[in-house]
Amino acid sequence: MTMAMTKGTKILITGGAGFLGTQLARALLRQGSFRGLPIERLTLADRVAPAHPDVSTDARVAADVGDLLERMPSLLAMEHDAVFHLASAVSAECEADFELGLRSNLDATRALLDGLRAQTMRTGTAPVFFFSSSVAVFGSDPGIPLPAVIRDDTLPTPQSSYGAQKFICEQMIAEYTRKGYIDGRVARLMTVSVRPGRPNGAASSFLSGIIREPLAGEATVCPVDPDTAVALASPANTVAGILAVAQADRDALGGRTAINLPALTVTVRDMLQALESVAGKKTVGLVSQVPDAAIARIVGGWPARFESPRAAALGLKPDASYRAVIEQYIAQNKTQA
Amino acid sequence: MTMAMTKGTKILITGGAGFLGTQLARALLRQGSFRGLPIERLTLADRVAPAHPDVSTDARVAADVGDLLERMPSLLAMEHDAVFHLASAVSAECEADFELGLRSNLDATRALLDGLRAQTMRTGTAPVFFFSSSVAVFGSDPGIPLPAVIRDDTLPTPQSSYGAQKFICEQMIAEYTRKGYIDGRVARLMTVSVRPGRPNGAASSFLSGIIREPLAGEATVCPVDPDTAVALASPANTVAGILAVAQADRDALGGRTAINLPALTVTVRDMLQALESVAGKKTVGLVSQVPDAAIARIVGGWPARFESPRAAALGLKPDASYRAVIEQYIAQNKTQA
Repeated sequence: MTMAMTKGTKILITGGAGFLGTQLARALLRQGSFRGLPIERLTLADRVAPAHPDVSTDARVAADVGDLLERMPSLLAMEHDAVFHLASAVSAECEADFELGLRSNLDATRALLDGLRAQTMRTGTAPVFFFSSSVAVFGSDPGIPLPAVIRDDTLPTPQSSYGAQKFICEQMIAEYTRKGYIDGRVARLMTVSVRPGRPNGAASSFLSGIIREPLAGEATVCPVDPDTAVALASPANTVAGILAVAQADRDALGGRTAINLPALTVTVRDMLQALESVAGKKTVGLVSQVPDAAIARIVGGWPARFESPRAAALGLKPDASYRAVIEQYIAQNKTQA
Repeated sequence: MTMAMTKGTKILITGGAGFLGTQLARALLRQGSFRGLPIERLTLADRVAPAHPDVSTDARVAADVGDLLERMPSLLAMEHDAVFHLASAVSAECEADFELGLRSNLDATRALLDGLRAQTMRTGTAPVFFFSSSVAVFGSDPGIPLPAVIRDDTLPTPQSSYGAQKFICEQMIAEYTRKGYIDGRVARLMTVSVRPGRPNGAASSFLSGIIREPLAGEATVCPVDPDTAVALASPANTVAGILAVAQADRDALGGRTAINLPALTVTVRDMLQALESVAGKKTVGLVSQVPDAAIARIVGGWPARFESPRAAALGLKPDASYRAVIEQYIAQNKTQA
């Protein structure tokens, strides 16, 4: 009868039913343990219940469905050994509705941090707290243009509400960590490509669409100049980065500031050539060039080149090639279909 | 009967009865106008009423006494054409009482910004909003050491609650400005020396005390190695910097990020030599060297050297010499005595 003696670990993922939340939940359930302890409970908080069968049928999983800020008192009534805070209103929403962004991205994070601070004061142990920030913290301020290469100590000058809110959360997490209230770790995620599913309102949507739609036999458009360079990461590499940052020894992180995850820098032309080499001329012919100045301006303002020695020190590498990214998508899409 | 036709400007200073708030209020009342309009009303919000006769007897001045966050609804019921937000819990308080710092430095600023956002939505005109940040935003993160020279694009990695809260406020102000809700301007103030009055709990207190106390014939201690370099500004130069940043044309600011005000870099030895040259050997003999490891560590962690082309572009210069700083203190002290 050792079961009652086994100390398992209790994990919360906010945004746990989203695309990355689901991939992360599956990876955690597959590995079975986190930081040396078996996973006893995995709470997935989101507006919707987890849909993927690997997740929804697992006895360790508990779904907590609703608005995050409204659910917070109940979520914080439980104890959490580790929290992955992925939930976030996305960039287009935040830009269109300023108060929504403040509420979803600032107030919810603050409430979560203050709840975990109270837990730490109660239990004496600071939970691991992973926060998914974004390369959207970087932008070209009128006075401080974006450098050609983003380094670990590049000053972010956000040019969107989403980026500003992410950067403010980074600072809160560094500070709560310095005070010992949480063991906070922040990684800035690259644009994820290839995302499954349907196009969405994000300016980056086409960076998955120009691969996913042609592979499904559907016509689609590329709204930017093919020479536009972008910084991408595959879903698998993104989840590997999240887990590596969350599982690293504190000393291996190289400080409390956010870590830029590895980026594969490619041009849109490179992406289309990789698609042709994998799927042929006819498939890539489904992509037509239809310039969209608004999207081109937004995407052109994103940083495309990174030097990330802190991520490299954690053993993290960019995806090997964009061809490998497409092959990963095809393989995963087959499995999941 | 043109009086009713004259459109004056209405200004709010939070922390308006503090040392810098009083100096700023006096400077504004002396110049009589702000950004081309006569000053019609100057509201000084603080825990105490303004004490200086230049301020307390001026018919344009209204005192608003109380806790800033509690007074906020009433303060925001008035309209403000310009706000100087100087009120802040200081570094030692914030480090000792985390919630006090969150409340005084984050929540009060957020409430003020959201109130001014509502005003802008109502009136169609964004008020000028000056925020006094601090060189305390800079610190040596375990992974990202402080560079030898701080530039306009140096990444702050705060190592105190006070510095973290100031840096978060900087980001909020840049974002509310980008959205057009305020015309926000942020200057990072250097350590002000020579402050009048009595020693306080700040680690920087001795940087005024080693001059002020000997000049008053009192013995005092220097807790750091005389070779310690520090970045200072006189009260007059600090107020000139605040006014220049608040009054500059938007385009002259060089972006929305915080501006480092000019710093006079001196060693403590330079300061004591200047004191001797002004006041003689006997006066400087009142300072005895009594090392304090805690203060030495804090002060040694502050940046001492700056390259600030954005401040220079506004015509701002460091104090000419530390001797000139002492002479300014003696002259002002005579006038005020």
